Amino acid sequence: MTTPYYGQLEEEKVFKDPVHRYIHVRDELIWALIGTKEFQRLRRIRQLGTTYVTFHGAEHTRFNHSLGVYEITRRILDVFHGRPHWKDEDRLLTLSAALLHDVGHGPFSHSFEKVFDMDHEEWTREIILGDTEINEVLTNVSADFPQAVADVIEKTYSNKLITSIISSQIDADRMDYLQRDAYYTGVSYGHFDMERILRVMRPMEDQVVIKQSGMHAVEDYIMSRYQMYWQVYFHPVTRSAEVILSKIFKRAKELHLNGYEFKQKPEHFYSFFHGKGSLDDYLRLDEAITLYYFQIWQEEEDRILRDLCVRFLNRRLFKYVEFDPNQRMNDWPELQELFRKADLNPDYYLVVDSSSDLPYDFYRPGEEEERLPIHLVLPNGKIRELSRESDVVEAISGKKRTDHKLYFPLDCLEDVREHKEEKERILRILKK
Amino acid sequence: MTTPYYGQLEEEKVFKDPVHRYIHVRDELIWALIGTKEFQRLRRIRQLGTTYVTFHGAEHTRFNHSLGVYEITRRILDVFHGRPHWKDEDRLLTLSAALLHDVGHGPFSHSFEKVFDMDHEEWTREIILGDTEINEVLTNVSADFPQAVADVIEKTYSNKLITSIISSQIDADRMDYLQRDAYYTGVSYGHFDMERILRVMRPMEDQVVIKQSGMHAVEDYIMSRYQMYWQVYFHPVTRSAEVILSKIFKRAKELHLNGYEFKQKPEHFYSFFHGKGSLDDYLRLDEAITLYYFQIWQEEEDRILRDLCVRFLNRRLFKYVEFDPNQRMNDWPELQELFRKADLNPDYYLVVDSSSDLPYDFYRPGEEEERLPIHLVLPNGKIRELSRESDVVEAISGKKRTDHKLYFPLDCLEDVREHKEEKERILRILKK
Amino acid sequence: MTTPYYGQLEEEKVFKDPVHRYIHVRDELIWALIGTKEFQRLRRIRQLGTTYVTFHGAEHTRFNHSLGVYEITRRILDVFHGRPHWKDEDRLLTLSAALLHDVGHGPFSHSFEKVFDMDHEEWTREIILGDTEINEVLTNVSADFPQAVADVIEKTYSNKLITSIISSQIDADRMDYLQRDAYYTGVSYGHFDMERILRVMRPMEDQVVIKQSGMHAVEDYIMSRYQMYWQVYFHPVTRSAEVILSKIFKRAKELHLNGYEFKQKPEHFYSFFHGKGSLDDYLRLDEAITLYYFQIWQEEEDRILRDLCVRFLNRRLFKYVEFDPNQRMNDWPELQELFRKADLNPDYYLVVDSSSDLPYDFYRPGEEEERLPIHLVLPNGKIRELSRESDVVEAISGKKRTDHKLYFPLDCLEDVREHKEEKERILRILKK
Amino acid sequence: MTTPYYGQLEEEKVFKDPVHRYIHVRDELIWALIGTKEFQRLRRIRQLGTTYVTFHGAEHTRFNHSLGVYEITRRILDVFHGRPHWKDEDRLLTLSAALLHDVGHGPFSHSFEKVFDMDHEEWTREIILGDTEINEVLTNVSADFPQAVADVIEKTYSNKLITSIISSQIDADRMDYLQRDAYYTGVSYGHFDMERILRVMRPMEDQVVIKQSGMHAVEDYIMSRYQMYWQVYFHPVTRSAEVILSKIFKRAKELHLNGYEFKQKPEHFYSFFHGKGSLDDYLRLDEAITLYYFQIWQEEEDRILRDLCVRFLNRRLFKYVEFDPNQRMNDWPELQELFRKADLNPDYYLVVDSSSDLPYDFYRPGEEEERLPIHLVLPNGKIRELSRESDVVEAISGKKRTDHKLYFPLDCLEDVREHKEEKERILRILKK
Repeated sequence: MTTPYYGQLEEEKVFKDPVHRYIHVRDELIWALIGTKEFQRLRRIRQLGTTYVTFHGAEHTRFNHSLGVYEITRRILDVFHGRPHWKDEDRLLTLSAALLHDVGHGPFSHSFEKVFDMDHEEWTREIILGDTEINEVLTNVSADFPQAVADVIEKTYSNKLITSIISSQIDADRMDYLQRDAYYTGVSYGHFDMERILRVMRPMEDQVVIKQSGMHAVEDYIMSRYQMYWQVYFHPVTRSAEVILSKIFKRAKELHLNGYEFKQKPEHFYSFFHGKGSLDDYLRLDEAITLYYFQIWQEEEDRILRDLCVRFLNRRLFKYVEFDPNQRMNDWPELQELFRKADLNPDYYLVVDSSSDLPYDFYRPGEEEERLPIHLVLPNGKIRELSRESDVVEAISGKKRTDHKLYFPLDCLEDVREHKEEKERILRILKK
Repeated sequence: MTTPYYGQLEEEKVFKDPVHRYIHVRDELIWALIGTKEFQRLRRIRQLGTTYVTFHGAEHTRFNHSLGVYEITRRILDVFHGRPHWKDEDRLLTLSAALLHDVGHGPFSHSFEKVFDMDHEEWTREIILGDTEINEVLTNVSADFPQAVADVIEKTYSNKLITSIISSQIDADRMDYLQRDAYYTGVSYGHFDMERILRVMRPMEDQVVIKQSGMHAVEDYIMSRYQMYWQVYFHPVTRSAEVILSKIFKRAKELHLNGYEFKQKPEHFYSFFHGKGSLDDYLRLDEAITLYYFQIWQEEEDRILRDLCVRFLNRRLFKYVEFDPNQRMNDWPELQELFRKADLNPDYYLVVDSSSDLPYDFYRPGEEEERLPIHLVLPNGKIRELSRESDVVEAISGKKRTDHKLYFPLDCLEDVREHKEEKERILRILKK
Repeated sequence: MTTPYYGQLEEEKVFKDPVHRYIHVRDELIWALIGTKEFQRLRRIRQLGTTYVTFHGAEHTRFNHSLGVYEITRRILDVFHGRPHWKDEDRLLTLSAALLHDVGHGPFSHSFEKVFDMDHEEWTREIILGDTEINEVLTNVSADFPQAVADVIEKTYSNKLITSIISSQIDADRMDYLQRDAYYTGVSYGHFDMERILRVMRPMEDQVVIKQSGMHAVEDYIMSRYQMYWQVYFHPVTRSAEVILSKIFKRAKELHLNGYEFKQKPEHFYSFFHGKGSLDDYLRLDEAITLYYFQIWQEEEDRILRDLCVRFLNRRLFKYVEFDPNQRMNDWPELQELFRKADLNPDYYLVVDSSSDLPYDFYRPGEEEERLPIHLVLPNGKIRELSRESDVVEAISGKKRTDHKLYFPLDCLEDVREHKEEKERILRILKK
Repeated sequence: MTTPYYGQLEEEKVFKDPVHRYIHVRDELIWALIGTKEFQRLRRIRQLGTTYVTFHGAEHTRFNHSLGVYEITRRILDVFHGRPHWKDEDRLLTLSAALLHDVGHGPFSHSFEKVFDMDHEEWTREIILGDTEINEVLTNVSADFPQAVADVIEKTYSNKLITSIISSQIDADRMDYLQRDAYYTGVSYGHFDMERILRVMRPMEDQVVIKQSGMHAVEDYIMSRYQMYWQVYFHPVTRSAEVILSKIFKRAKELHLNGYEFKQKPEHFYSFFHGKGSLDDYLRLDEAITLYYFQIWQEEEDRILRDLCVRFLNRRLFKYVEFDPNQRMNDWPELQELFRKADLNPDYYLVVDSSSDLPYDFYRPGEEEERLPIHLVLPNGKIRELSRESDVVEAISGKKRTDHKLYFPLDCLEDVREHKEEKERILRILKK
């Protein structure tokens, strides 16, 4: 057997982390991955996008979260060490996948991906397999190691047990972000007894299962997730900032494609305006670059781009009302027309945003949400899907909840120096 | 009496804050100030500069901290309400000064101010008194209100009691940042019983004093401050990033003054390269703008600028050794000479950084550090300076501690493909 | 108007409290009540009875909890101050009732009340209305004040709003004990955002209602309560200690009534063995007295009493199996018979304990559980019962959950030096 | 090699602990020790004696703390595992000594030991070596194992490294009680970064040393200890309760020795009234027994005993003034005389209590306080005593601080229906 390229660090490295107290790194491979420029780039990409406009504490980055997912995975593997179904030779693969699972995220991913029609998961794959420092580090382990890491993250790896540690309905990813996002926003949701959950996780063939004695801690985790979705992730003010952000990207792209002359050429975005950009271009992007453009665009000629950027940077957000598009189909064309008459382009200033969440689901073959259900292992060794044992989980299982809101610039509508009649009519419709 | 321009908000606004749980705003004036673009700009300026390279949680901003100082001040004034020496008519002035005390900070202030020879306190004054949204809001209160706010922040206001709430050796500013920085970095220092301190604060002529029964909580606060300075604020890794940052600014300025042609003109910095910039230029700066330039400078022609930016962004920092310049005067010229021979410009690659802190001091007239000492009020009404009552504080009072470190690119010195002899000699001297 | 007997304290008194940080007392009346011997007696009665055998941290007392309920009520009334439907003249009545609501608890109330067929609520009434220091203090307020306090606690007071602050499905009592019991046991359940709930509570005619914007915090509180019931309050090991405790009381009573001669006369229990004891006798009881007897009874002649006391004090508890008496009616007589044959008195050594909880319920007139449902007040002023707005609460609303366990001394059954056959048969039945 | 009597538990046992989250037991030996009746007796002895009258949360027991010391020791040994100077064969000895180090404590030890002139350390020894369940369990390991455990606790064991884990100036005992007492009292002192300290502890010949990089965490620990002593352990109100408690024991003993007839014979104390009691008698004592007697003594004939018990149980404590006996030698005889004239026996009602603490000390051979100093190990392997490296510790090192208070029943002195003149004179002297 040949000596592996990466061994153990001479002295363990530790990161001080508010959520897990310390993050411990003993493997040279992990240390090398953290040091790559593609991983360091995650320091310039916020974990929660525009949430910081609602919760000012939410300024933490994906760098932060990625280390956390690695650390939880490390602790899970400590529990698995020596147990049936688990082979320690899979340790570095699992840890690498945990650390890198979000490496493809770009600036304000949610809006960016939507407008430019891309997917951070594809970028993750390209970063791991392409001409990057990360790929170089991974290849030092073995020629097929980068592919294995990418497969685990994409859930196509043969050993499903490894995948389920990082993405299932109770995985290292979710356990980190719920706690971390709760910590940085300061909300009191997001707490559950992770130490207990780690103690009752067991490897079992192609998945991680939970000892039945830990069921209540899992219930608490699921409720925690439920609350975080509605109290933090789908907060209507955050969504307002998100709406404006998407419209900025959309406007800039549209202007560019229509031959508009920017005062300073937005070269960083060129390739994305025209289709899927190159890996190099993508890696050059981050939230600093993006905010730089938003700032200079505050002084652009185009009135819409300028206004949206001023709104975003100075937090002059759109207001919102409840608005279910399915039930208001008749109002919609009228509203659009009235906006146009009031000199407000409805493509930018009249936006419906719908958020929906499925707090927990048992397995439904062929459905979109492919995260595995949670299985309990009973004292007699039998396996039972969680919602069959837990009343609380059963109650919310499979119940999708959706929230529709209509966003618009109330300040413009209240300014009735012009188009008084249309604006009053709009406000009447919105208040229905 | 005329109706004031700003009254009470119809419904109290609250911010969720991880440190103080909630920040409460009831005054229209405060709400208007928070909404100004100059105050929103603080969202794009980190509270702890480069500390995030050492403590990845320290991504919080000055926006965050400014709200915290306001909130603590608000709670202090609730305690003062109705007590002798305190007049409620000074409430809005005190709250405004608390909220705005840091509004003049720029991107990575510490380095920026040093290289461009400026002072954020002057900028604070200009923002409050100049042609800004903040000035407009403050002027609505009364014509002389902006000046009063500026004077409180500059400590020249006639009523010293107000000043001492915001800047003394135990003030709303320090109480917020110690707790906040501890929270976001995750260190276990920085905790003290603020609720108790607030309960024992009393207004007394020209200063805030502390009831003697609260002395131990104050001791704890001072030790907390001491630990935060050495464990967080002066962390040698953070200082390494700070050193590189300063050298980037210095190099860019030097290149510009020498007529170097940048690939993209660094227009945002022009006025600062040439002297004190205008207020407009200053307000346009933030950390996104700065990081944008650092990123594009990674591809500049100039080898030094390029290298420093790559180091900063990808966290390839300088290493350090203990190095007291006063005791190593002889080594210094030799080291500089050897660096030059090894093709490493010592102006950029050989840097001594000295940090020093005075954890607490009684009053010494005429000295630079003008923060007021802490006074206790005894049950009999007499006033005693803290260090005369507390053994622990007496022990560290007036004792300045200094730490000197020499920073340099160890990686370059270890690469002995060229200048082997000089590099080995350098390493020998540094290891002395 | 005459000057009231009790006014404000010259200086506010504070208690350091781990759960609420500080408990503030400004009213002389409250301070006087805390100082009575009947209230100080609560220091010698644990909040959670035998729970400390399972969670060793749960050694906190009813004194502790009673102060907490007072403090929460005080904070609620601060929110109510100045709002419609609330009259500040009811403040002292509400605070007194909050402080005294549990004053009738005796040692290990749960078992004690069951065996001696009494109710701590009756004792609370007698302590408030009888010849006690508490009654004396209350009477100083006015002749009818004690009766009013007793009526609020008994929920017969005319102003239902006051009652609902102290006993409804979201009241000061529950909010304190959930947090306090979680703190002292160390479990991670029991956390919810009480500060938020307090901010959204509103007085409304005959009840406290919750602003709709606080619904999620209330959901979290209800889930918290659910988890605490099953993870802490109904923990099977605690119930085992409770079973033994009940049997000790039962045995002592039975022996006494049968003329058994105790080595030391259990005079403290005499009146309870013979029926409802006097108030004086009841106030003399506490957990120290009870444990004193248990200790000396370890050396009694009677084998059963001796054994049960040794078990209780040295934590040699009964083991348990799932056992639904409704489904095992046939096994029961056989088990009893086998126990008798095995020389184990089934009245003491074969015990079914059933615990059940209704996590939340809407109103069902005439039913036993009379706590009021939780009502939300919508922005339009309309009132809606919580489960109609909350999916999660709806899911668990009205769903009673019951757990049946059979307790028995496994150690005796495993000791097969005698009655081998019967014991093996018993174990076979229990393992079914 | 023979199979040891105790092995590993089939399934790890865990205790939920608020301070360390979980306490893990894997060794059958430890589990057996916890189950002994002498160890379970610690559940009936509070950790902080009378502190609960000041901090109502401080109701935790020595059982609680003993498990904590065991757990910290277990974690230290996990760090030591595999390092030079540490032999894993000493593991069970160290863990047993950690668990049992306080097993000799009796009810309200501090006062009890003083009045009856005994020492809980002697009792610890007797319990370990005498005819007890603990001795039986330990002897199963080997015949000389009990003696080894006793020696470690008494610091006479040959391997000083083991002793220093459990008693030095930074040991498992102190680290547990500081955190635990802070948790239960709710004070904000008592926090330090134990996880960091555990990470930097190293076995080194005959002591535990600390890596220099952990110095600041140790400084924080020492300051924490300093604050806990003066804010909690020496709180003047707690000392007032302690003074009364001592006087109860003293009075009861004196009465008994003078032939006084108690209504119920205090048989539990007989052997202690007459000298050192037997081990059996000692093990029968606990705080329930003690409080039982205090309660019935509230109805004794003797006025002093009755009064002191009423005061203790109903928290009607003595008041206090600063009073340095060394400087008030002249006042003392006069005060005693005046108390006698005012019909207040000064032996019981006029009490000076002096508390003193040495927050940290370097080694002074031959002195009473024999706890080892803390040594740092520098990166070069050299050892330095802590106060030589730390300014803060140096500042307080060796500085003993003493506080003298005079306790007396102010209520009696204010009741001037009799002895008006003497009482007024007393109050004048006390107010000097």
